[in-house]
Amino acid sequence: MEWKNIRLLLSYDGNQYHGWQRQRGEVTIQGTIEEKLYMMLEERVRLVASGRTDAGVHALNQVSNFQTRSNIPPFAIKKGLNSLLPLDILVKAAEYVPMAFHARYDARSKTYEYRILNKEEPDIFRRHYSWHIRSPLDVATMRDCLSALVGGHDFSSFRSSGGKDGDPFRSVMEAKIHGPDDDLLRVVIEADGFLRHMVRNVVGTIVEVGLGKMEMSKFAEILRSRDRKMAGVKAPPQGLFLVNVNY
Amino acid sequence: MEWKNIRLLLSYDGNQYHGWQRQRGEVTIQGTIEEKLYMMLEERVRLVASGRTDAGVHALNQVSNFQTRSNIPPFAIKKGLNSLLPLDILVKAAEYVPMAFHARYDARSKTYEYRILNKEEPDIFRRHYSWHIRSPLDVATMRDCLSALVGGHDFSSFRSSGGKDGDPFRSVMEAKIHGPDDDLLRVVIEADGFLRHMVRNVVGTIVEVGLGKMEMSKFAEILRSRDRKMAGVKAPPQGLFLVNVNY
Repeated sequence: MEWKNIRLLLSYDGNQYHGWQRQRGEVTIQGTIEEKLYMMLEERVRLVASGRTDAGVHALNQVSNFQTRSNIPPFAIKKGLNSLLPLDILVKAAEYVPMAFHARYDARSKTYEYRILNKEEPDIFRRHYSWHIRSPLDVATMRDCLSALVGGHDFSSFRSSGGKDGDPFRSVMEAKIHGPDDDLLRVVIEADGFLRHMVRNVVGTIVEVGLGKMEMSKFAEILRSRDRKMAGVKAPPQGLFLVNVNY
Repeated sequence: MEWKNIRLLLSYDGNQYHGWQRQRGEVTIQGTIEEKLYMMLEERVRLVASGRTDAGVHALNQVSNFQTRSNIPPFAIKKGLNSLLPLDILVKAAEYVPMAFHARYDARSKTYEYRILNKEEPDIFRRHYSWHIRSPLDVATMRDCLSALVGGHDFSSFRSSGGKDGDPFRSVMEAKIHGPDDDLLRVVIEADGFLRHMVRNVVGTIVEVGLGKMEMSKFAEILRSRDRKMAGVKAPPQGLFLVNVNY
C-alpha cells in the first residue's frame, strides 16, 4: 500500500491538556489524537503540528499532518476522529496533501491572539478563555508598544526564561489590539515564528505599561536589551489562542 | 445579637454542579455557598434562592438571602465568600435587606435565556454554554410560536414529566428570540414563575418547529392540550441561564 500524507485542521480547548506535545504520563493534544488515529487506522502514526502549544493554550485553527498507508479516505478520518475524540478537540477538516507537505517546516507565518478581559468584576463564563485585569488599561499606549514590535527583531527579551529556541530573531508582520468589545481586548500578533512564551511575555509586559506600572520608553528598551530578566510578568495561558497558520 | 437578613446577588456556571438545591452526597450551589458561609460566620445558615436551578443550568443573576446573627458586614461577606468560593461561583453583591425580604416569595418575575448555537460546525469554546443545532432553523416561525405563549396559560404540556409543581398556571410577560448574533440565538422568556423544565421543554419544542419537524399549528395545539406527552424533546441544560429576578 502506498504512503499518503493527510493534513488535519484542528480546533482545541487547551484547558484540560498538558499542551500539544506527547509526553509520558500526561494528557496532551497530540497524544490524544494519535491514540484515536491508532484505533481507526490500526497503525501508529506520528502527528506533526505547525508548532507546539503550551499547557492551557487553545487553538482555533491548528494545522497538523501525518503519513499513513491506510486507505481510509480523509472525510471518513474526520468523521471517525470527531466521534472518538473528546468534545474539546475538533477536527475541522481533513484532506490529502502532497507527500512533501510538512506542517511545521512549510508554515510561512502564524497568528496568535491573546484575550484580556478588562472590567472590574470577574466573568465566570469567560474565565477559561481570557486573562482578567480589573483596573482600566491605557489601550492607546499598549498599541504604541506593539507597533514597536513590527519588523525583524532579536526577541531574546521575551523568550521563555531558560528557553533555548536557537536563533532568537523573528519577523513580526502585524501586532495590534482589537476592541474593547464586550470588555474584551484581543491582542493579535502575526510573525514568521514565535519563541516559546513570546506572546505571553509580550502581553504581560504591555499590560504593565497599560496599568501605568511601566513607562512606554521602558518597553522599547526591554526589546533592545535582549535580556529576559527585564520583561514583565508572563500572561497566563488560558487567554492565548493559536488563530491561524499561513502556508 | 440581633438577627439580620442579607441578600446575595450570585452568578454561577452550573456545569460542575448538581443544581442549586443542597442534596446529600452531591455538589450543589446552595451546599457549596452554605459551607463557605459556615467557615466565615461560624454559624449554620440556610440560603433561600428565588428558585432552584437544575443540574448544569447557569445563573447570570440569581438572588438569594439568608438570616444571620453575625455582625460581619455585607461587603466583608462578599469579599470573604469570593476568596473562599471556587471560581465558577461569584458573589456580585451583598447587602442588608429588611427581615421580611424572602428571595422566593417576593420575586415578581424571573427572566430566563436559552442559548442555541445554530451553525453546521460545533464550537468547542461555546459547548458548555449553548445547545448546538447543526441544521438551519426557521427563526421567524419559532418567534411566532413564542408569541403564543405570552399571557396567562396552563403550562402542563411543558412541565417536567412526572413533575408536581402544584398549580400549572403561569403568566408570561415576554417571549422573544434575539439574534442570530455570531451564530447564537437567545430565547428570552420572562414569567411570574416557571414550572420545572418549562423553558427547556418549550425550547426543545420550538426547535422541532424551527427544523420543520413540527407544524406551527401543532405548537398551539400542544399548549392547549395540557398533555406533557405531546411536547417535543427537552433541550439540554447547558444552554439555560437565569438572567434576572425582578422584585
